[in-house]
Amino acid sequence: MFPAVTRAFLLSSMTPVCRSGVTVRRYCMKNPTKLRVSEAFLDAQVGEKVRIQGWVRSFRPQKQNLFLHVNDGSSLKSLQVIAPAAMNDPLLGFGCAVEVRGILKKSPHSKQPVELEAEQIWVIGECNPVDFPFKIKERHSLEYIRQFLHLRCRTNAFSSLLRIRSEATAAVHSYFKNNGFLLVHTPTITSNDCEGAGELFQVEPPGTTFANEGSFFSVPVYLTVSGQLHLEVMSGAFPRVYTFGPTFRAENSQSRRHLAEFFMVEAEISFTESIEDLTKVWKTAASDFTIISAYIFLSPLHLKDTLDDMLRKSFPVITYTEAIDILKRSSETFTFPTDWGCDLMTEHEKFLVKHCGNIPVFVTDYPHDLKPFYARDNQDHPKHTAAAVDLLVPGVGELSGGSLREERLDLLRSRLGECGLEDTYSWYLDLRRFGSVPHGGFGLGFERYLQCILGVDNIKDVIPFPRFSHSCLL
Amino acid sequence: MFPAVTRAFLLSSMTPVCRSGVTVRRYCMKNPTKLRVSEAFLDAQVGEKVRIQGWVRSFRPQKQNLFLHVNDGSSLKSLQVIAPAAMNDPLLGFGCAVEVRGILKKSPHSKQPVELEAEQIWVIGECNPVDFPFKIKERHSLEYIRQFLHLRCRTNAFSSLLRIRSEATAAVHSYFKNNGFLLVHTPTITSNDCEGAGELFQVEPPGTTFANEGSFFSVPVYLTVSGQLHLEVMSGAFPRVYTFGPTFRAENSQSRRHLAEFFMVEAEISFTESIEDLTKVWKTAASDFTIISAYIFLSPLHLKDTLDDMLRKSFPVITYTEAIDILKRSSETFTFPTDWGCDLMTEHEKFLVKHCGNIPVFVTDYPHDLKPFYARDNQDHPKHTAAAVDLLVPGVGELSGGSLREERLDLLRSRLGECGLEDTYSWYLDLRRFGSVPHGGFGLGFERYLQCILGVDNIKDVIPFPRFSHSCLL
Repeated sequence: MFPAVTRAFLLSSMTPVCRSGVTVRRYCMKNPTKLRVSEAFLDAQVGEKVRIQGWVRSFRPQKQNLFLHVNDGSSLKSLQVIAPAAMNDPLLGFGCAVEVRGILKKSPHSKQPVELEAEQIWVIGECNPVDFPFKIKERHSLEYIRQFLHLRCRTNAFSSLLRIRSEATAAVHSYFKNNGFLLVHTPTITSNDCEGAGELFQVEPPGTTFANEGSFFSVPVYLTVSGQLHLEVMSGAFPRVYTFGPTFRAENSQSRRHLAEFFMVEAEISFTESIEDLTKVWKTAASDFTIISAYIFLSPLHLKDTLDDMLRKSFPVITYTEAIDILKRSSETFTFPTDWGCDLMTEHEKFLVKHCGNIPVFVTDYPHDLKPFYARDNQDHPKHTAAAVDLLVPGVGELSGGSLREERLDLLRSRLGECGLEDTYSWYLDLRRFGSVPHGGFGLGFERYLQCILGVDNIKDVIPFPRFSHSCLL
Repeated sequence: MFPAVTRAFLLSSMTPVCRSGVTVRRYCMKNPTKLRVSEAFLDAQVGEKVRIQGWVRSFRPQKQNLFLHVNDGSSLKSLQVIAPAAMNDPLLGFGCAVEVRGILKKSPHSKQPVELEAEQIWVIGECNPVDFPFKIKERHSLEYIRQFLHLRCRTNAFSSLLRIRSEATAAVHSYFKNNGFLLVHTPTITSNDCEGAGELFQVEPPGTTFANEGSFFSVPVYLTVSGQLHLEVMSGAFPRVYTFGPTFRAENSQSRRHLAEFFMVEAEISFTESIEDLTKVWKTAASDFTIISAYIFLSPLHLKDTLDDMLRKSFPVITYTEAIDILKRSSETFTFPTDWGCDLMTEHEKFLVKHCGNIPVFVTDYPHDLKPFYARDNQDHPKHTAAAVDLLVPGVGELSGGSLREERLDLLRSRLGECGLEDTYSWYLDLRRFGSVPHGGFGLGFERYLQCILGVDNIKDVIPFPRFSHSCLL
């Protein structure tokens, strides 16, 4: 009744060949319905003959029967397969790829709704348990798993993360689309030395000297640190635009919050009348992404509760000046100074979040001198501020930053003049010369956002291929 | 009844200031409903007082009335605004940004469903017609428009393109999501020198010498030419994965079909049994993107008909060997040789498309020696081929390329050995060592795809910020 295990490649065009000493046979019987594991759990096919394909995540040979769990990435849960002990085979084991055909049955156990009673098992690709870095039944640490970037998607932890990341990305696009935003593919390579910082990566074909003349683009070019200025170009015809793509910083940091390549969601809104308008969109966006993406996937219930709690409340909005007052009045000892005019450091940000009840906080109206040329001048005194705002969140600190942009030609020109950038940014001045409108926007670090909603400590565990100083694997 | 034109910035926090000699006043009356132009066309608000914000795309002052068209990017069509001549103002004109309040009325003209009878017009941002490079009523060539990357979104032609591109992107994501694919953010910076070609861009912080030691990542790193190998990593746990992002080639080309930075859609499918399986997904995907994205937007009807016609037919599949026969038997004179073993050049590709009735054609089973190490060996003779396939389309030539991947450890190892790459790609060999499955995939150039469905001649006109040799504006 149960034929012995057969090993086969599934390529119908294949002629039998010998691989790893195992004869590979071609099969040609009529195929039963192919199901994904997540579809099998819907149990509409109970009683039918089906086939599933995937990887063995657990393997338990017993006297009478073999028990295996097969996962195909369609859900965290694997499908339990039961086969007679006679189907056992030295190549069948943890990590190998299989196709299983059999009858889908209601499971007698409450742990799973269905199970597959195997009639045939093909080992498609073997997996030597001695060489394979992940071991059956062992709970490997994230640090250990991270060493094997090319294999870590085969662990439950990281495959869950990949599913969440994919869903969260879809949620981002869906939020913006439903709210009338145009997606703009801002460039990766740019000639903008945006903030004049030393944290840029430069780009050239190998063997080229990085001189202005004779180089590939004729000018020095960099990897983008932000799509903002390019989005502002589009803000002159589309009142709501966004971008979502990779951004780069050559920061020599190995921290749990920094990457050399990370993803950023950036939005720009024209005819924005105040910083309150901006924070309203921002809060709605962040909440919407989270509700759609995280709630379905998060298994630790306390996380879901924390998030629920966080998002039900309105996010407090305090000014930088109020923030400084809070810090000065506190009994906490800080490493960095808390004088008006100094930048808020991570320790300050974390304190402010805690002070506000461990929920996200907007801090607005930073000192004018701390902000880049494009931030809108509040023209206040004696404390001269700009209409810039940061969103601080529990665990992570600064998640997101934004500002109203200086849309007034005269003010922008004189600010650029002071920095000696009037010529470099003459195109940017043109945006104010022709049909300028008040506008503003924000950027949100996607990995930090994932860290925040998932409670993941290290940023390297929320991106498929982390790049940081001294590490660029694969 | 009609107050004179008032100019105002919309920032409620603003105090009156002087800009360009014009007094800016703050307004604070109760705001009527704000509508986007596309919403106004739905004419549900006819008879109501509304306000719209946008840019003036045409301006016609007549004896009794002013006529203007206001566009806000929400649709190609602009909203006609009628105002009494008394509202005219030197600052009101082509290109300026305005807010208009008034009563939305059914239009007496068949050209438009509704029009706005203005009660107030604010010029938010002026636009000097002498300096503005686009002139009212002039039809500028795409070459002319392309010089002003920072302003071209304000033309009808390019703003339409941006809307289509945004919709096509959404269609790509929606196709893959609905078909069970996981989105993977493959990295931009990579240490893979993928095909060993000289067309890579190298990346370093400025001032660093490109040596192995002391460099930012400790190894030489490049901008990705393809996410394929990274997708293959994920194919070991997820049978359907895709990526959609920027890709790079340091090709010294100014052609109508090449960019240094372009977008690529790439998909990888595990448990793929044959090249026919692959081309089936591929054809469905390409057709689905097109139907969703293009049909709504394309105004030239002949284009829609051509596309309809193209997609109704099944795409012919011919082998490379058959293609060579067709080329050899033709009476056409080619510049490049058409012997078996030679690469197909653009002239050959265009001929083959025409020969097959000017519809997309799949060419399969290329000479083994022409294809990279990862292409699956067909193990045939005397003509030794690999299971690789290209999709050729009218107007553009090669739109997309793919292959089955060599999933057999022994064959892959010996191929990598021949190229001296066994050590470099030991991680790639690991994918075949542990739970390997037959798989394949394809990549599709997004800009060439847009060129094809929109009939756009120059690739620089289908991407917001084109980068090519000697040009990286903004």
